[in-house]
Amino acid sequence: MSDFGIAEFQSRLERAQIAMHAENVDALFLCTEAEIRYFTGFRTLFWQSPTRPWYLIVPQKGELVAIIPGIGAELMSNTWVKDIRTWSSPHPTDDGVSLLGKALKGYSRIGMPMGSEASLRMPLTDFEKVRSLCSAEFVDSTSIVKSLRMIKSDVEIEIIRKICEIGSSAFSRAGSLFHCGQPLEEVFRTFKIALLQAGAEDVPYLVGAAGVGGYGDVISPPTSTPLVEGDILMLDTGSTLKGYFCDFDRNFAIGHANDAAKDGYRRLWDATEVGLANARPGVTCSALFQAMHQSLGGGISDVGRYGHGLGMQLTEWPSICDHDETVLKPGMVMTLEPNMAISEGKMMVHEENILITENEPVLLTKRAEPELPIL
Amino acid sequence: MSDFGIAEFQSRLERAQIAMHAENVDALFLCTEAEIRYFTGFRTLFWQSPTRPWYLIVPQKGELVAIIPGIGAELMSNTWVKDIRTWSSPHPTDDGVSLLGKALKGYSRIGMPMGSEASLRMPLTDFEKVRSLCSAEFVDSTSIVKSLRMIKSDVEIEIIRKICEIGSSAFSRAGSLFHCGQPLEEVFRTFKIALLQAGAEDVPYLVGAAGVGGYGDVISPPTSTPLVEGDILMLDTGSTLKGYFCDFDRNFAIGHANDAAKDGYRRLWDATEVGLANARPGVTCSALFQAMHQSLGGGISDVGRYGHGLGMQLTEWPSICDHDETVLKPGMVMTLEPNMAISEGKMMVHEENILITENEPVLLTKRAEPELPIL
Repeated sequence: MSDFGIAEFQSRLERAQIAMHAENVDALFLCTEAEIRYFTGFRTLFWQSPTRPWYLIVPQKGELVAIIPGIGAELMSNTWVKDIRTWSSPHPTDDGVSLLGKALKGYSRIGMPMGSEASLRMPLTDFEKVRSLCSAEFVDSTSIVKSLRMIKSDVEIEIIRKICEIGSSAFSRAGSLFHCGQPLEEVFRTFKIALLQAGAEDVPYLVGAAGVGGYGDVISPPTSTPLVEGDILMLDTGSTLKGYFCDFDRNFAIGHANDAAKDGYRRLWDATEVGLANARPGVTCSALFQAMHQSLGGGISDVGRYGHGLGMQLTEWPSICDHDETVLKPGMVMTLEPNMAISEGKMMVHEENILITENEPVLLTKRAEPELPIL
Repeated sequence: MSDFGIAEFQSRLERAQIAMHAENVDALFLCTEAEIRYFTGFRTLFWQSPTRPWYLIVPQKGELVAIIPGIGAELMSNTWVKDIRTWSSPHPTDDGVSLLGKALKGYSRIGMPMGSEASLRMPLTDFEKVRSLCSAEFVDSTSIVKSLRMIKSDVEIEIIRKICEIGSSAFSRAGSLFHCGQPLEEVFRTFKIALLQAGAEDVPYLVGAAGVGGYGDVISPPTSTPLVEGDILMLDTGSTLKGYFCDFDRNFAIGHANDAAKDGYRRLWDATEVGLANARPGVTCSALFQAMHQSLGGGISDVGRYGHGLGMQLTEWPSICDHDETVLKPGMVMTLEPNMAISEGKMMVHEENILITENEPVLLTKRAEPELPIL
């Protein structure tokens, strides 16, 4: 029933346990979707409901312990996890807390992701109760989870490659999908349907914008404003397959484009070429950022980065920015996402997805056209 | 640019400030999507990216303070929020923390949702830093946020009514969408497209199952197993419009159904009638649960509840379960969701969405057929 065979999960657990041993962590305590799925294969959209907490303990020695609401017992029993402890949730006074306290007893150093990109998907009051019940030291283990999840396995890469192909295939239909006069919210709806038709399982993320000669914002929901001649339409999708994301965008001009837009597009395309030329194992993210940034002429960007990791989440560590000293390694799946101001209040973003290998990076997305496509 | 006029947000803030005064809370500190959207109108799918934290301070007196990554400045400036403080995020050492410390200085009691259904969408290490910077007492204000969000305004209700209509309209096409031999993952894809075509903005949640005479699990992603004669197909969707959810399911028999399935369906339909007859202002959720539970013959259910609140999240407070003493009030939007075991390992779930009024509840979904529909 799982998306991967048991060997994949054994390998993940083994790598985690080696890292835990090295950092003297007795157990990892996890409560977030991506982390629990990473170790167990437990995949469900039910995480959309904030009502029930879900917990996983990864011991330095031995097997995983899932402590979950009864409603998830059957699905979890189809994974490789054997030790599944459930309670009837939601519970008014003890929503898994005493089960957790019991399971964590005896550990003296418990690691959790507490740093950059981490969150605590459980009530803070319950977390304090758990802490007092097990009297262990809780330490930040962001680095352990990060180091594992950043390097994708072959089966993970194949899934991401496939969803990138699906996204590329949907974008290739742009000429027949989008047209002048179409309200932006219709553009979005049409493209979501095209992504599903092309084989995406879900389209959790679609943002975009349209504006003459460029756009001002890249995270807004669509309005009913129709596309007009001269608009630059940008669509950026995080579609999924088996819970893994692609994350890339494409720009199109409606009817025609001004020179500033054409020029900006080409400069971003060139900056991506620089990214592709520099994305080699051993290179730091900050060096990759600097190479791309220099090709765009330097200056300050509010977006703050030119790409990021990609996988079970739309964005993952590391960040291609001037302060991230993460060294690129084979197996990392990344976005290259240069952006620049075209004119006052107008910007443009360009994005591809790549796999870092021993040599040249492999493009997972079908490379965008070097010149701004006109629809 | 906001989904609502300023009066809506002024009213939300005013109600919050009255509750904060009553509970002696100087400011609310918020970091989660639904809460920040509730007070500001800031709506974006960008929350899918875990990289950047977003913060909002709701003072007991005065105006909102948004402390957000620069990438969100333009979108936030289109809301009614005037005091917007930004930084270039992600930042390696100070990802908004010092801005927060400064903004929270002077408050002595700071409220946060820390209880049931709450989570902390920021790194725990940063939260500890903020706590030490502002030396205030941090208290649980789940009840304030809950009491506000549980009662929907007229404009919120209209949006939810509309997305329920859209969902009902898509389900009404079941006879032409689903057929024997269709792999379940194709059923899901087809239905997502139908929901978008019917006017849904997004389909963040679609779960379901199919099995002869009933199904064993209601939160799984679909497999490639084809529908067979005698299957009961259940689809449960949380589709959205302007960021508000419907959440209901429908059951269909493929070709024919056994008596146990037909009987179970009718009993759940009847239990929903009991729910509709009892969902009156002044009634507690636990009394509503008991009424529905008795109509199903009592016993123990692992799902633990027969419905819940609904709005900006797929599930919200309160829970229709035997321990939730929340009193129903006009303006609450709820699901009625009885479930039962049909036979060993087979269950069935039935769900409608309703609005609590001064008198009878208003059905927001088109009521399911009283007898199991055969496709």
